[in-house]
Amino acid sequence: MRAAVTRNGAIVVDEVPDPVPGPGQVLVRSLACGICGSDLHALEHFEEFVAFSKRGGVGPGLEPDRDVVFGHEFCGEIVDFGPGSGRALPIGTKVCAVPMVIGPRGPELVGYSHTFAGGFAEMMVLQEMFLRAVPEGVPAEHAALTEPMAVGEHAVARGEVAGDDVCLVIGCGPVGLAVIAALKARGHAPVIATDFSPMRRRLAATLGADEVIDPAKDTPFSKWEQLGVPNTIMARTLAETAGRARNAVIFESVGAPGILQMIIEGAPPRARVVVVGVCMEPDKIEPMVAVGKELDLRFSFGYRAEEFAATFDRIVNGTLNVAPLVTGKVGLDGVAGAFKALHNPEEHAKIIVRPNGVGGN
Amino acid sequence: MRAAVTRNGAIVVDEVPDPVPGPGQVLVRSLACGICGSDLHALEHFEEFVAFSKRGGVGPGLEPDRDVVFGHEFCGEIVDFGPGSGRALPIGTKVCAVPMVIGPRGPELVGYSHTFAGGFAEMMVLQEMFLRAVPEGVPAEHAALTEPMAVGEHAVARGEVAGDDVCLVIGCGPVGLAVIAALKARGHAPVIATDFSPMRRRLAATLGADEVIDPAKDTPFSKWEQLGVPNTIMARTLAETAGRARNAVIFESVGAPGILQMIIEGAPPRARVVVVGVCMEPDKIEPMVAVGKELDLRFSFGYRAEEFAATFDRIVNGTLNVAPLVTGKVGLDGVAGAFKALHNPEEHAKIIVRPNGVGGN
Repeated sequence: MRAAVTRNGAIVVDEVPDPVPGPGQVLVRSLACGICGSDLHALEHFEEFVAFSKRGGVGPGLEPDRDVVFGHEFCGEIVDFGPGSGRALPIGTKVCAVPMVIGPRGPELVGYSHTFAGGFAEMMVLQEMFLRAVPEGVPAEHAALTEPMAVGEHAVARGEVAGDDVCLVIGCGPVGLAVIAALKARGHAPVIATDFSPMRRRLAATLGADEVIDPAKDTPFSKWEQLGVPNTIMARTLAETAGRARNAVIFESVGAPGILQMIIEGAPPRARVVVVGVCMEPDKIEPMVAVGKELDLRFSFGYRAEEFAATFDRIVNGTLNVAPLVTGKVGLDGVAGAFKALHNPEEHAKIIVRPNGVGGN
Repeated sequence: MRAAVTRNGAIVVDEVPDPVPGPGQVLVRSLACGICGSDLHALEHFEEFVAFSKRGGVGPGLEPDRDVVFGHEFCGEIVDFGPGSGRALPIGTKVCAVPMVIGPRGPELVGYSHTFAGGFAEMMVLQEMFLRAVPEGVPAEHAALTEPMAVGEHAVARGEVAGDDVCLVIGCGPVGLAVIAALKARGHAPVIATDFSPMRRRLAATLGADEVIDPAKDTPFSKWEQLGVPNTIMARTLAETAGRARNAVIFESVGAPGILQMIIEGAPPRARVVVVGVCMEPDKIEPMVAVGKELDLRFSFGYRAEEFAATFDRIVNGTLNVAPLVTGKVGLDGVAGAFKALHNPEEHAKIIVRPNGVGGN
């Protein structure tokens, strides 16, 4: 089959062996697969990413010199079944799944595995037990966004957002937008979003952010008191004693060095900081400041199965409108160019790869 | 009155004005006052400490060129009352209190204030509403340890320790020992403690640590699996699904650069890391590793009023035996030497200052 292969730090279209579904697995045709920020990171910092995949604990990890086919935000169509499958869904069913397959060496991440090619290929193997049928009328490219949007759902859960917490989303790339969408899908307010990019700020507003700030002109960190969030540990303690202390939950969805310390400096006391941006480099913080404010830094990774399911349901029933996020579609030949284009936040949010043809649903 | 005064980076004994209790305040004779690690930090890094006190948000903060009398872990004896006091406790009552006084410029921290001298002076002013009477038979030097032990109580609360969580205490100085004591006072097990100092390891064992590790010979981070804590995110997820995932709660009670990253590297997935050691320098971490493990870094500072009260009650009723922590007693003339002696962990855990005479209770 044809695939967009990551090889020696570049993406090339090549023929790779057709995948064969094993026990409990299905063969699907890849209909739509989003390009994730992690894919960009992995392409650019492949050695670090390989080292991380070995430390990370999911699957056997990657090898630096071997080909890999990325793509873990997918929607496919059932083509065939492996031995011992339940065949609960008929051939031709459009499906989503968490990107995990249980292979001979244990669980592996689809799209970050040398065994299981991701969705930037014509065909893929998925685990039958993880499949969710996509109802008629839901475009494959929207269903494919279940995966990245579930990351936002999980981040919100990690932040234990409740009541009238003031939520501040730093960075409105796909991860930050997923956080905003997850917050608004549960009707939460206020949600304040900040990004240097005008297009990303527009998308944040489209997804329902209550206030959108251009950090070149204003700082969200100057507003705590006017938002009713106590901004000294003493004011906070007094407010807590009186039973009316409003919390701040800050989402770090940039993933670049220096952002964490900027948040530590700007956060109000006892804020919960959910770190959902993935900073691939070492970073410097001042623990003393975080201690003095009693901050929580809650690092967030992926999502749980039930969060994936909840996000899928919201996309299917229309509570979560992901259409505005799709800013481009490419075939396999367009993947390399799409990776480059995604570096310009004015141009794109999410590009969908359609390995079997750009048209259709 | 006489006081051990911090002046130009040194501690000197000098005469300072007698304190006068204001409205709602009492005058007490300082009977016993512990030297805190923060006092050592503050003496050595006074400028940083001053800058931090301004950022910290309690009180008006310190000035770099002015005298200050340290001492916030105290027990005193009521000598006189300010105007408008309730006089609920008679003169001569032995008392403890959270080290906070509400002065003309708002709340200030006793012992880190230019207005309210701490317990390293013959007399001090306290807020009457915060006083707790120390029952007969409880030595002042034990009651004085309520304050530092409450720091451990708060850290345990920040860690939301429950069930059979595996608690690992990194560093067994006074803060780590307070954490161990708070854990054991609530009957928690297992508690694993680690410190390079043999004397501190002995104290950890005396306070009830279930296992004490010499990090020069062994690493606590190699034991997760044998302790039943899943050590990959995948193993953790499977254990959570099966409803039997054991948590790790790690207490950083060293407060030196590099410890946080060492913990991030060594922690099992989804561990809660309570940062209760105060690292006064910038520190480097790898956020990506913390993301991959979904760690929580929960920075912990001080304690809440109810935690102070609970700790006081435990010391009074004997559940919390602080006697082993007291390794030395000095008068005001011995304070400067005690600060130096505390740098040797083989020599001392907690030195008690007795400004009105080393003898007596």
